[in-house]
Amino acid sequence: MIKPLGDRIVIKVSEGDMKTASGIVLPDTAKEKPQKGEVVAVGCGKVLDNGQKVAPEVKKGDKIIFSKYAGTEIKVDGVDYLIVRESDILAIA
Amino acid sequence: MIKPLGDRIVIKVSEGDMKTASGIVLPDTAKEKPQKGEVVAVGCGKVLDNGQKVAPEVKKGDKIIFSKYAGTEIKVDGVDYLIVRESDILAIA
Amino acid sequence: MIKPLGDRIVIKVSEGDMKTASGIVLPDTAKEKPQKGEVVAVGCGKVLDNGQKVAPEVKKGDKIIFSKYAGTEIKVDGVDYLIVRESDILAIA
Amino acid sequence: MIKPLGDRIVIKVSEGDMKTASGIVLPDTAKEKPQKGEVVAVGCGKVLDNGQKVAPEVKKGDKIIFSKYAGTEIKVDGVDYLIVRESDILAIA
Amino acid sequence: MIKPLGDRIVIKVSEGDMKTASGIVLPDTAKEKPQKGEVVAVGCGKVLDNGQKVAPEVKKGDKIIFSKYAGTEIKVDGVDYLIVRESDILAIA
Amino acid sequence: MIKPLGDRIVIKVSEGDMKTASGIVLPDTAKEKPQKGEVVAVGCGKVLDNGQKVAPEVKKGDKIIFSKYAGTEIKVDGVDYLIVRESDILAIA
Amino acid sequence: MIKPLGDRIVIKVSEGDMKTASGIVLPDTAKEKPQKGEVVAVGCGKVLDNGQKVAPEVKKGDKIIFSKYAGTEIKVDGVDYLIVRESDILAIA
Repeated sequence: MIKPLGDRIVIKVSEGDMKTASGIVLPDTAKEKPQKGEVVAVGCGKVLDNGQKVAPEVKKGDKIIFSKYAGTEIKVDGVDYLIVRESDILAIA
Repeated sequence: MIKPLGDRIVIKVSEGDMKTASGIVLPDTAKEKPQKGEVVAVGCGKVLDNGQKVAPEVKKGDKIIFSKYAGTEIKVDGVDYLIVRESDILAIA
Repeated sequence: MIKPLGDRIVIKVSEGDMKTASGIVLPDTAKEKPQKGEVVAVGCGKVLDNGQKVAPEVKKGDKIIFSKYAGTEIKVDGVDYLIVRESDILAIA
Repeated sequence: MIKPLGDRIVIKVSEGDMKTASGIVLPDTAKEKPQKGEVVAVGCGKVLDNGQKVAPEVKKGDKIIFSKYAGTEIKVDGVDYLIVRESDILAIA
Repeated sequence: MIKPLGDRIVIKVSEGDMKTASGIVLPDTAKEKPQKGEVVAVGCGKVLDNGQKVAPEVKKGDKIIFSKYAGTEIKVDGVDYLIVRESDILAIA
Repeated sequence: MIKPLGDRIVIKVSEGDMKTASGIVLPDTAKEKPQKGEVVAVGCGKVLDNGQKVAPEVKKGDKIIFSKYAGTEIKVDGVDYLIVRESDILAIA
Repeated sequence: MIKPLGDRIVIKVSEGDMKTASGIVLPDTAKEKPQKGEVVAVGCGKVLDNGQKVAPEVKKGDKIIFSKYAGTEIKVDGVDYLIVRESDILAIA
């Protein structure tokens, strides 16, 4: 499986349904065009200036909202994934 | 419910009345176009360079003024919410 | 009353008289167009990278000079206020 | 053999096959145009502001995905190598 | 009297004579257009990231050379003053 | 002899042969146009924010690859030298 | 005599001879157009984020090479001086 480095997070993007289980609907004209997805893999976390690692706030399986124009697309076995930095994740839905 | 990450804050925007309970009126031509709203959910706070977390100064239920062009719009059950960084919140009204 | 966050300061702008009690006159063609005003409310202060809070140097009632193009205008009961960062305040007059 | 400095990593670029052993396919229209390769040599790691060295997360032999427009091309005995910073490496595939 | 904040310094600008007591002449075509003046008031000094205050290197009465395009003009009783940051002061003449 | 300051390194540029002893060939169309050379003198190293000096990773006599558009050219007795920052040196060849 | 502040250095520029005692010749077409000169006065040194002062690596009398487009020209008794930051000094010749 793919293992992101540092503060990077691998996301399985939810292209179709724009409404989450908890009822969050993402508008078309949102300013930063957020998208939802599910966390697939997390890195070790950001390394601070004092050498300390900050564990990511999200874990595998979390439903998240992230900024659309962030990250790099990759494909694993025909499924779209996105590698973003944790700072591009806005909230856990 | 939606849970913002890090120093992000979820706000319920007050679109209609531009005058708060304490009488604050927001002008149309304000330079940074501030808006008012109510805090719905707060993140854990910003992580400093020494690894310390700074708890947000605002809490759920606070009436706040924030910079209009900040943040990302989301919708939960037909209600507009905004996810902003705490640094985009100017004051508690 | 309005309570600014962090290192923000609420100022009551002095629009009319451009000469303070101590005789400071602000020229029309000043490069950064400073203005004078009175501090109405102060935030808790800036949070440094080590988590320490730095109390603002100004307090309620101080007559100050600040950079004109800084901050966000708000109105409380018909009076103009400005929310600026403490770093936009140049001096106590 | 070539020895990169600091947080730099030498990569043997995989030009031909765009599908890794674990089945990751890189699309042509990816936003940041990631590429895959194999780590050939690693530097000592980044030096933090407190003087501490952070050992790279990748080691010789790791199959990696990196941002295409990063780094500097060099040739050793007719083989293409790329010298990138570790922060340009997105994930271990 | 006016009291500058933080690392700001109030300067009485010497408009007329471009030659100081120690014989320093400032050319018309200097790249950064330095000017000379006299320190009138100093702030408490810059606050470092560790919370420590650095006392200014200049004191009231010092004849100084500073960068011309720095700072904000103010007038006190008809005399031109300039509020600059200490980092805009080049040398004590 | 010339003594570079801080994290600067003096390099004797190898203009002619584009193939090192270990067989590294530098292509004409490399994105950052790297060049090879030999270290002639090194500074004391970069000073970190905590006051600690980081000794350079390269030493006199090292064959190195560096970014072409970095640094300042000087001539000593008709020989071309280049003064670069250590961060402009990519690898020891 | 003029006393530079902080990490600033006062240099007596050598306009005429472009060849130093140790034989360093500065080319006309150098990318950063370095120049040589002699250190006339040094400041106390740069203040780091932890409040520590770093004494300058150069001292009065040192023959140095510096970046031409750096600093501010001043004149003392008809002699050209230049005030530069220590980081603009490349090497001791």
